[in-house]
Amino acid sequence: MDNHSKPLTGIFQALADPTRRAVLRRLGQGPASISDLAKPFDMALPSFMKHIRLLEESGLINTRKLGRVRTCTIERKPFSMIEDWLSTQRVLWEGRTERLEQFALATREKENSP
Amino acid sequence: MDNHSKPLTGIFQALADPTRRAVLRRLGQGPASISDLAKPFDMALPSFMKHIRLLEESGLINTRKLGRVRTCTIERKPFSMIEDWLSTQRVLWEGRTERLEQFALATREKENSP
Repeated sequence: MDNHSKPLTGIFQALADPTRRAVLRRLGQGPASISDLAKPFDMALPSFMKHIRLLEESGLINTRKLGRVRTCTIERKPFSMIEDWLSTQRVLWEGRTERLEQFALATREKENSP
Repeated sequence: MDNHSKPLTGIFQALADPTRRAVLRRLGQGPASISDLAKPFDMALPSFMKHIRLLEESGLINTRKLGRVRTCTIERKPFSMIEDWLSTQRVLWEGRTERLEQFALATREKENSP
């Protein structure tokens, strides 16, 4: 199991939908109310709310009710977790490339030795 | 819709599972046969094959049959697509921070002007 395995599953699950990614892109520009967020989508509010709930459960957004308006804010931590995961993957590749280079070098040295 | 919307959905969907992420981590170290990949998992082969197929459909891995052995290789392009998506998100945040800074600066200048 990787670190943060459970949160990562929820984060990737939340990102696996174009509506939810569009909501995150909008929230990247600043907080917004749920009704403003829903406007660009041809979708009933209960369906849209499901997307919001999934985003909130994954930790990608926070929502806060002030009076009658619920405002959504993006959370950066899950994005860092994806970046960490990508870095870990990259370290594996680099380790592999390095091992291949060392092998190639060792082979060449062996071939060139008298 | 974001660019690459459809592939991104498939990629994030494929990543939303700890078994599939573990397979990618293993393949980050180099190609492997399906039977070798399956070993660490307490899972029937047909179930494991579903994970492999989902990874292949998303473009995260390639599989190639040589004789009786099917070998899996990781593909780096989908990882770049996630990185691009994260960068776009980051650009939005930075734009937002810059606008906030300009606003703060303009306000301070106004306050300090005679």
